[in-house]
Amino acid sequence: MSAMGTLVLLRHGQSVWNAENLFTGWVDVPLSETGEREARRGGELLREAGLLPDVLHTSLLRRAISTANLALDAAGRHWIPVRRDWRLNERHYGALQGKDKKQTLETYGEEQFKVWRRSYDTPPPPIEPGSEFAQDGDPRYADLGAAVPGTECLADVVKRLVPYWEEAIVPDLQAGRTVLVAAHGNSLRALVKQLDGISDADIAELNIPTGIPLRYDLDDMLRPTVRGGTYLDPDAAAEAIKGVANQGR
Amino acid sequence: MSAMGTLVLLRHGQSVWNAENLFTGWVDVPLSETGEREARRGGELLREAGLLPDVLHTSLLRRAISTANLALDAAGRHWIPVRRDWRLNERHYGALQGKDKKQTLETYGEEQFKVWRRSYDTPPPPIEPGSEFAQDGDPRYADLGAAVPGTECLADVVKRLVPYWEEAIVPDLQAGRTVLVAAHGNSLRALVKQLDGISDADIAELNIPTGIPLRYDLDDMLRPTVRGGTYLDPDAAAEAIKGVANQGR
Repeated sequence: MSAMGTLVLLRHGQSVWNAENLFTGWVDVPLSETGEREARRGGELLREAGLLPDVLHTSLLRRAISTANLALDAAGRHWIPVRRDWRLNERHYGALQGKDKKQTLETYGEEQFKVWRRSYDTPPPPIEPGSEFAQDGDPRYADLGAAVPGTECLADVVKRLVPYWEEAIVPDLQAGRTVLVAAHGNSLRALVKQLDGISDADIAELNIPTGIPLRYDLDDMLRPTVRGGTYLDPDAAAEAIKGVANQGR
Repeated sequence: MSAMGTLVLLRHGQSVWNAENLFTGWVDVPLSETGEREARRGGELLREAGLLPDVLHTSLLRRAISTANLALDAAGRHWIPVRRDWRLNERHYGALQGKDKKQTLETYGEEQFKVWRRSYDTPPPPIEPGSEFAQDGDPRYADLGAAVPGTECLADVVKRLVPYWEEAIVPDLQAGRTVLVAAHGNSLRALVKQLDGISDADIAELNIPTGIPLRYDLDDMLRPTVRGGTYLDPDAAAEAIKGVANQGR
């Protein structure tokens, strides 16, 4: 047995705003019933694979927290220690938070839309402080003070996530633990970018499906033994990735 | 504002074994639907009272963990830090775990039944290791080794709980936090015994209703400013306590 633990990534299931096709970011919406089902199924996959987390890391957002709670309950691991951190949050979507994706596409055109969604280093316009979907004044970010972002590009997410990876997740792995990270499309893309050494250009094409645990075995230098990791349900993952790729069509 | 934080106790809602009238102890049964409703209602009471937990302490048992998850979600505090410890577990019911309460009463008679349920220092016979409802081999207690109890009386619960109170909960209170302790009938009775200085004899009569947050404000010496604390829904609490008192009739 290697001394290094096992990393398991789990993207939250469908939220009510995913279902309504709204930009979400840091807005704290709950899972839809479909999302709750996905989360429980993710936990069953963990149990069936005998891949039982020893510790959980989540964001501060309800859809990741609920996904973890439901999955761990289904896996019989509801009792493990929990660490939560804003640095695992979804990318802050700036002024787009709460906006309809289709309307945004029609208003700003496909090119601008794609830049906001997929460019590595161009964030959307910042959200107006005090507006309906802004996070200033949210008590869970009180310790951050003025560092609460008003918008983020993926590069910003990488910049905040990598220190958390190094300070909080790596020590758990080095202690030999099976570590579940329940988080979001873009915070997990940032983590996978770091793990697999994906370029700023190529990360645009990477999509992580919801609700399917993604296992990474790492060597002593924290390099994945299998690049891209291994989904616990590879067929469902391939199907979901194809679906996302076709979404923009 | 006092420097000392506020303590909030929450006994888990009805479990499926409460509903079936079985002794539960450390057997890890889920909440019933009634229990889930109770938990959400408890969270709404917290929200309505503006009594918003900064940190959660739970046992390692699903019915307390789920109660906390549902209550905090309802209160909008799902994102707070979590500490879990076996020392907040329900009393271990020994060989009675999994047994029908009515049958046990009929088999052993009212006097013996009352001793096992309510005496301060007489535990039920120990559970047989390796039997269906024993906890030896349960990974969540692996660190305890041979210290995993085979049965407990309330005095045993006090003995394990008070060090956790002093080491883990008191520092959070001294840091000025609002601390939610989501636990069990007997671990909360042990805590209240300590807080209110209740005698070994008098604690037998104390019952804490399920799902109704119980608030304790403490002075600098950790003495309750109101003995017995204050239920967030005093009428429902009084009603429930009356119900429990009549249960044996």
